[in-house]
Order: sequence, then C-alpha cells, then structure tokens
Amino acid sequence: MENDKKAAKHKASMEKQKSNVDASIERADIERGLVLLLTGDGKGKSSSAFGMVIRSLGYDYKVGIVQFIKGQILSGEEIFIRDKHPEVEFYQMGTGFTWNTQDRESDIKAAEDTWAVAQKMLQDDSLHLVVLDEITYMLAYKYLDEDMIINAINNRPSEQTVVLTGRGGGKAIREAADTISEINDVKHAFRAGIKARKGVDF
Amino acid sequence: MENDKKAAKHKASMEKQKSNVDASIERADIERGLVLLLTGDGKGKSSSAFGMVIRSLGYDYKVGIVQFIKGQILSGEEIFIRDKHPEVEFYQMGTGFTWNTQDRESDIKAAEDTWAVAQKMLQDDSLHLVVLDEITYMLAYKYLDEDMIINAINNRPSEQTVVLTGRGGGKAIREAADTISEINDVKHAFRAGIKARKGVDF
Repeated sequence: MENDKKAAKHKASMEKQKSNVDASIERADIERGLVLLLTGDGKGKSSSAFGMVIRSLGYDYKVGIVQFIKGQILSGEEIFIRDKHPEVEFYQMGTGFTWNTQDRESDIKAAEDTWAVAQKMLQDDSLHLVVLDEITYMLAYKYLDEDMIINAINNRPSEQTVVLTGRGGGKAIREAADTISEINDVKHAFRAGIKARKGVDF
Repeated sequence: MENDKKAAKHKASMEKQKSNVDASIERADIERGLVLLLTGDGKGKSSSAFGMVIRSLGYDYKVGIVQFIKGQILSGEEIFIRDKHPEVEFYQMGTGFTWNTQDRESDIKAAEDTWAVAQKMLQDDSLHLVVLDEITYMLAYKYLDEDMIINAINNRPSEQTVVLTGRGGGKAIREAADTISEINDVKHAFRAGIKARKGVDF
C-alpha cells in the first residue's frame, strides 16, 4: 500500500517534470550554431570543451581546436587528439606557458600568430565546432584586441558553434555568449596536498 | 620607455605567479587516485567527465564508464566511444530516461543492475579511471543506498580515479570527494529560444 502510494506520487512528479521539459523544448525553435563560454576557477573547463569535441566527432562533424596558453608538456587529451584523431584541426600556441617565458613582447607575437589560425577557422563553414581554449587570458593580459575577437565570432558561419574557455572573460564576451557555464572550485584535491595526476589533471 | 616599464611589470607579476604555483606544487606530495564530483545545474558536467576520459586514453590507460540515466537516443560522445574506442568499458542503464518511464519499481531494478556493473569496475585495479555519469540522481530518488556507494568508492584500488556527475550529490558524497567542481548555469541558449544542438548538447 505504502509502495503503491510512493509509486503514484513518483509517477505524478515525473509526468509534471516531463511536461515542463516538453513545453520548453517546444518554445525553443531557433536553429543555429552557439557561442559557449566555460569560465570560473574550478577544474573542468578544458575537459568540458574536449567532451564537446568528441560529441561532435561522434557524428563525424569537422572540428577545429586552438589552444592559446600551453605548457611545454602535452596533456593527455592533446596526445589523444594528435595520435588518434588527426582529422581534427589542432593548433597550439606552443611558446610554453607564459608564466615561464615572462616576456610580454614575445607572448603578444605568439598570441597574434595563434589568433590568425583561429580567425581562419571562424571563417571556415566546414567546421561544425571550433574550440578556442584559454582565449580569455589573451584578453585579460591585453595580448589581443577584444573587438577583433568578438567581431570574428559574431561573423562566423551561422551553423558553426564556438566554445571559449578560461577564467574571467569580460563583459563583451559574456554578452556574445549564448550559454555561459561558470565552473566553481568548491573543493580541490591540490589543497589537501594531493599531487596533480596524469590522466586526470593533465 | 612606456613599453619597457610594462614589460618589466609583466615579468615581475608572472614571476610571482610562477613562484606561488611552484610552492603549491612542492607542498602537494600525496600520490593516489582521486574522487571528483562534477555537480551544479550548468551545462558541462558529463562533457567534462568525457574530456577526462580522453585525457586518460591519451596515455593508453584503461577506462570504465557507467551511465545511470540515459535517453533513448545515443548522444554524440556515446556514439564516439562505442564506434571508435571499443577498448573503453562502457555500460548504460538503458531503460530510457526515467522521466519517460514513470515507473518507480522498474527504475529501481534498472538502477540496481547498473550499480552491479559499476561496483565491479570499482574493484578492478586495471581501470585507471571510472566515470559514474549521473549517479547523483540515483541517490536523490533513493534508487540506490548511499552508504553502499560511498563504501565501494572508498574501498576502490588506491590508484583508481572516480568521476561522479549529476546535480546535487548530498553531504556524504561531497565529503568523499577530493575535488568538487560546481558548474553554474549563468546563461543558457535554451532560455533564449535556441534549440538544443547535435554535437553540442547531445
């Protein structure tokens, strides 16, 4: 008896949730590529972008990835894409992490060269998804001009989705974004003295 | 002159950041598998888990994935793993999304069968990474016992990392987690009437 009541309550609640979701789906009728911003100081921004990469690859869509700030050591997802999915257009700034170079002029040059690659991708309508990983730092450090980036994003092919990652992002990027997820660092193993881990953190 | 000053200031600031990071890295000396919780109502939880999957695959580590709540249609990352990376142990609850079944008893049965697969993975020390996608809902709906899950996670092989995803999560899971990232929905295309997109949202 108790179980029957529970089951009936559950059914009613699930039906309600489903009808709410169905109604929202009906209202959403614009079809076009999106601009997504993955920001915040928590772990998971680039991972999430790479998760969307394989989501697109599942449908055999073409994908481009540009990484703006890169360490000297390739991380697991980069090795994976390079070795196992060479069909992905993949470009890395490749000057080593800017914290290590400590040379503003050479960083700006590297940022501009890397942007040239990104800009081409944003004009290529064969690309379903373009990831601009850690691009927000290029704006925070004023290595690249914000208007130039926003314009290129707004003028991309209408079917193309762009994913931007990195902390911060600034007002203009936030306005340009259709979807913003902010990943907050509620707890981090690092602070409990646990080492960054191969296959998890890099 | 102005540029020289800027460059010097930049160098000093970068050096400071680098030395802070280096000091933290030195303090972190515990090496073991982690428990990560990706939660919050924003877009990117499962994507982020799949990003860690390919990070591990980049090093040829073995990976297991169990998905607890699943739609009737396979999403892009699922097609990708199934078709292109059959080396991944991949199990889906496969009853269709619970909002559609609206049958508590059969959902519980499906949850228990799925948990049996997850439990095996949590005892398999050949697996470097185990993803339990959307497992938090199994607790929220009380389909699975929380203590049983926490015990299995705490008693897993010490080198194994576990990623848990889903909204909520409850106190016990939060305590068991070494790292918690909460993904907040700051803005969502859906609310502006833009349709969910193949290769991006599913």
